[in-house]
Amino acid sequence: MRLSRYYLPTLKENPKEAEIVSHRLMLRSGMVRQSAAGIYSWLPLGFKVLSKVEKIVREEQDRAGCQEMLMPTLQPMELWQRSGRYEDYGPEMLRVTDRHDRGLLYGPTNEEMLTDIIANTVRSYRDFPKLLYHIQWKFRDEVRPRFGVMRGREFLMKDCYSFDLDKDSARKTYNKMFVAYLKTFQRIGLDVRPMEAETGPIGGDLSHEFIVLADTGESGVFWDDDFKAIDLSDVDYDDEVRVAAVIAHFTELYARTEDRHDAAAFEDKVPEPRRRQGRGIEVGQVFYFGTKYSEPMGAKVTGPGGQSVAVEMGSYGIGVSRLVGAIIEASHDEDGIIWPDPVAPFDLALINLRAGDTDCDAACADIYGKLTSAGVDVLYDDRDERPGAKFADADLVGLPWRLVIGPRGLKDGKVELKRRDGSVDENVALDEALARLIAVAGG
Amino acid sequence: MRLSRYYLPTLKENPKEAEIVSHRLMLRSGMVRQSAAGIYSWLPLGFKVLSKVEKIVREEQDRAGCQEMLMPTLQPMELWQRSGRYEDYGPEMLRVTDRHDRGLLYGPTNEEMLTDIIANTVRSYRDFPKLLYHIQWKFRDEVRPRFGVMRGREFLMKDCYSFDLDKDSARKTYNKMFVAYLKTFQRIGLDVRPMEAETGPIGGDLSHEFIVLADTGESGVFWDDDFKAIDLSDVDYDDEVRVAAVIAHFTELYARTEDRHDAAAFEDKVPEPRRRQGRGIEVGQVFYFGTKYSEPMGAKVTGPGGQSVAVEMGSYGIGVSRLVGAIIEASHDEDGIIWPDPVAPFDLALINLRAGDTDCDAACADIYGKLTSAGVDVLYDDRDERPGAKFADADLVGLPWRLVIGPRGLKDGKVELKRRDGSVDENVALDEALARLIAVAGG
Repeated sequence: MRLSRYYLPTLKENPKEAEIVSHRLMLRSGMVRQSAAGIYSWLPLGFKVLSKVEKIVREEQDRAGCQEMLMPTLQPMELWQRSGRYEDYGPEMLRVTDRHDRGLLYGPTNEEMLTDIIANTVRSYRDFPKLLYHIQWKFRDEVRPRFGVMRGREFLMKDCYSFDLDKDSARKTYNKMFVAYLKTFQRIGLDVRPMEAETGPIGGDLSHEFIVLADTGESGVFWDDDFKAIDLSDVDYDDEVRVAAVIAHFTELYARTEDRHDAAAFEDKVPEPRRRQGRGIEVGQVFYFGTKYSEPMGAKVTGPGGQSVAVEMGSYGIGVSRLVGAIIEASHDEDGIIWPDPVAPFDLALINLRAGDTDCDAACADIYGKLTSAGVDVLYDDRDERPGAKFADADLVGLPWRLVIGPRGLKDGKVELKRRDGSVDENVALDEALARLIAVAGG
Repeated sequence: MRLSRYYLPTLKENPKEAEIVSHRLMLRSGMVRQSAAGIYSWLPLGFKVLSKVEKIVREEQDRAGCQEMLMPTLQPMELWQRSGRYEDYGPEMLRVTDRHDRGLLYGPTNEEMLTDIIANTVRSYRDFPKLLYHIQWKFRDEVRPRFGVMRGREFLMKDCYSFDLDKDSARKTYNKMFVAYLKTFQRIGLDVRPMEAETGPIGGDLSHEFIVLADTGESGVFWDDDFKAIDLSDVDYDDEVRVAAVIAHFTELYARTEDRHDAAAFEDKVPEPRRRQGRGIEVGQVFYFGTKYSEPMGAKVTGPGGQSVAVEMGSYGIGVSRLVGAIIEASHDEDGIIWPDPVAPFDLALINLRAGDTDCDAACADIYGKLTSAGVDVLYDDRDERPGAKFADADLVGLPWRLVIGPRGLKDGKVELKRRDGSVDENVALDEALARLIAVAGG
């Protein structure tokens, strides 16, 4: 994409309303614009990141055997009256009345709706287990929306629901989803810790939150610092032994959110030098809640012996739009964002130091064409701007690679190749730069 | 996908509330379930079709130079008060009040919101032209929702907005989008006619609707039957001469919706034997409305000469969820849906006539594995059901290809290969069937 044609309204100044770094950088880099309190429009650059995050989340859900569907944003009030949550949910639920005075609400989550669908369509034990998910906009009418997409009101969530015939099968499903979450966050390039958590308004007695450690996080967390991540790239979700081993590794050490914290157990189980206390951003949560919804909503099936059984359920959420903010909280410097490769909006910033110069323009057009054909996604800064402004925008937007073409270097056949994270910064021959970029980014 | 594991709740009976064939077939084939009046949940089969339609729409928008973004579903009331449409829109607009008594609305379209964003971010004539689009759920509170997803209340729309510096450039953009629409519908496999139309609540003085002729359509239409479609697969949207020729071809004959119909002109221009009058389904509409929104919302830029210019705008909508219904209205028989290949939820129904029989199971598992690895998307009916039930479900779901494996045929190394549209129905050697399927569907 040529920057001169791209809709990328970057800001030079820090917007006053932005209290945390991800909010500042998302506004400044032209990723989002606020359209109302806690409600954002995703501009093309932000939308590309959101789509890449969504794609990784979707791929791991599909691999774990979840089937994608799509429920609507608005739900009938009656469903929530049947589960008893309509009154419980409080003012965070956005209630709507339609032209015929029927009560609707903007769904904050979908336990009721999907349980009702299952109750009306599934009859036999042979139809289980089932794992169904969707990726849809939700709404929670936060009293004080802040921190940009991190605590917005309209937000994109992936929510999955599991239906099993018995507790043992439901627990295996919980474990599989737990590992799918770990792998999802690992693929995105985020260091995420699972922590025992309270179940809150969803209910049940087993839940974990997936936490990105960050001072700007909304949750207090306590953990044993002896934790070491393990590579999950080759995990097979149907390999129960491996899944159980991963779960054991990730849950053996003390790690809890503050609601679930037990000071005595913390001191008892964790040697003093390893005790840590801090803040974290919740990017996902998994719940097992048994028959909390299947009983009142009538999701029962006839078992093999002829008896009626309420199905065992769990739900599994990932905050897709919030993840974009969390990634930036975890990966930036004072000049801007440092995107992890898998979710970067483009692979490379190609900077023409002297737009208008015949040689520079020709060389850049040629490089742009070659890289694009090889599958490298290039944002080509062809604007008539001073080098300083181009470098500042490139640092702000934070693409993994930067290739700088200037008149002096071109005479010697040299270009500047740099990684945004500082791990590469070299003057190399043009052909070598292209070969390296195609090898790593054009794959 | 093995059907025994797939969530596909088909219905044997026609649901009473379904008045038209697409609504009946979408409910019966387990594509959707109604969650409230005019509000649907898309189950996995329906979601797959919706995603394929969405993908084709997106690809042609991208090729035409449109940049994707994503605006929220809820919009602040103030935006619509500024354009003057808040009062005009009437009871179809779903109005919402949040916990702080601020007025929101569920967006039926996004002219105001995007014009406001452009007004606040773009300053120079060098930033134009710009084409921005999103694919997002919209809401229109229809007084009598009916016909399933064809006239629902919550619906998925692709809406694109163009911003040009002058009328001439805006008209070229309109033409490009017009051709992109024709090509989009052609790729989906739909015979669509552009017709001159009224602009309605969007405004402006130039508009075309894209119409699928169907007795169940909501619009009355009048057209000259001398029309012949032309192949647009190789059209280049930047080739202005070609684009103009396509436009000329598609607009030279009389074709108008009833609001725009002129009986005298119809009789004058169209010889009697070619005059047609009927009904149609609107699947897309394009508008040019000049400065109707840019003036009140302040989307003005400084032109090259220093003067302030309100930008020239158009908008371009495709009803993505409605298209799914329209495709079925245009392509079905008494047994079920006949999916056009590009939007079929799977390529092939693989039917095991005797699930449980060792030879049949082994042969089917082998075929399923081979086709899947070759990129053919197979729905494998491995259920313990009678052949009649399997054939009925296969016809209902309407996948383009069907491969039947039975014990008798297997002994002779023969299988039954069939196209849902009736164009192929043969007993062939298994290897030949696989080779043909891989060639046409696995590509």
